[in-house]
Amino acid sequence: MLIQLDQLSPAQVYLTMIQTVIPRPIAWVLSENADGGLNLAPFSYFTSVSSDPPLIMISTGRKPDGNPKDTRVNVEQRSDFVVMIPHGALLEPMNASSVTLPAGESEVIRLGLETTPFEGSRLPRLADCRVAYACQRFEILEMGNAPQALIFGQVSALYVDDSIVGTDAKGRQKIHADRLDPVCRLGAGEYALLGEIKRLARPR
Amino acid sequence: MLIQLDQLSPAQVYLTMIQTVIPRPIAWVLSENADGGLNLAPFSYFTSVSSDPPLIMISTGRKPDGNPKDTRVNVEQRSDFVVMIPHGALLEPMNASSVTLPAGESEVIRLGLETTPFEGSRLPRLADCRVAYACQRFEILEMGNAPQALIFGQVSALYVDDSIVGTDAKGRQKIHADRLDPVCRLGAGEYALLGEIKRLARPR
Repeated sequence: MLIQLDQLSPAQVYLTMIQTVIPRPIAWVLSENADGGLNLAPFSYFTSVSSDPPLIMISTGRKPDGNPKDTRVNVEQRSDFVVMIPHGALLEPMNASSVTLPAGESEVIRLGLETTPFEGSRLPRLADCRVAYACQRFEILEMGNAPQALIFGQVSALYVDDSIVGTDAKGRQKIHADRLDPVCRLGAGEYALLGEIKRLARPR
Repeated sequence: MLIQLDQLSPAQVYLTMIQTVIPRPIAWVLSENADGGLNLAPFSYFTSVSSDPPLIMISTGRKPDGNPKDTRVNVEQRSDFVVMIPHGALLEPMNASSVTLPAGESEVIRLGLETTPFEGSRLPRLADCRVAYACQRFEILEMGNAPQALIFGQVSALYVDDSIVGTDAKGRQKIHADRLDPVCRLGAGEYALLGEIKRLARPR
């Protein structure tokens, strides 16, 4: 089947892309609004970008009313934000945090999620998360016609739960993907967990 | 465990990030060099960016010798490239295509992969792929100190194998994630396939 994207509406393009660029990692982003309230929202247009400096990127769209997403507003105002990688046990609250609340109403409070201080970060992290990145705004680029806001974050510190850290066959420190148990984002309303993990040698 | 990234080398930062920003989708990129040879390489610093226009982004680093990756050079020269989403049966050749060959030597030929014309694209796609995007260079941004080259591609046409297209519970066309069977990129040398797919309602 051939799909000509210029014959589709942006909403149809979106549906097509989220069903095919898979699996997507999820950035579960905690940010702070001007009143000190904590916002929490998941984004799956999300990638690592570079190691020097350590950069991640999240592409954010707009709310149904056309205004920028709260996360983008908060990162613009406050600079710092926290990105967490949700795991299987957090699937339901993570999905629930994608609700569009009035700006200023906190998903953290509404969902009854516990936060804990995050060393190396002014903002807290969710107590139950296994991986959290302390980020500062590196750059926000607008791109496209809507436009999307591409939030580039520089990662300063990384929390990794001790339960997912071990060693590999050669005794080197390793973060175990199966113990992290990350949620995979698929198409509309669909998620998955990881199946069997395969190890392949890098070709020479 | 707290990891202060500014105390790590870029190579250590990379190892930390690839083990935690997971699962990553894989852009298996076919591009053409100045001599008409086909280059094929996988990238997992890859995300959808926007729907209007349809944009994807791939962040590319450098070869061990410090030169830009062939994919970046080719996209800069030729503009058009093809991104495929590899599935489980293609895991071995996809991993093998990450080998660093001398520029001009084709991974497609070396691995004996079959190509086929791709309607809507000057370049072919791999005959066995289930999803392929015909892309044109939208922008290449350099970012960071190495620097990384962020290739933004505008997608014009999308090939979807008929075998993965069906309908959802409401009779609307749907691309089935389990039939696509995408490869998930994890940390060093590790891949996974999808586990059980879960469907959650969007919260209101």
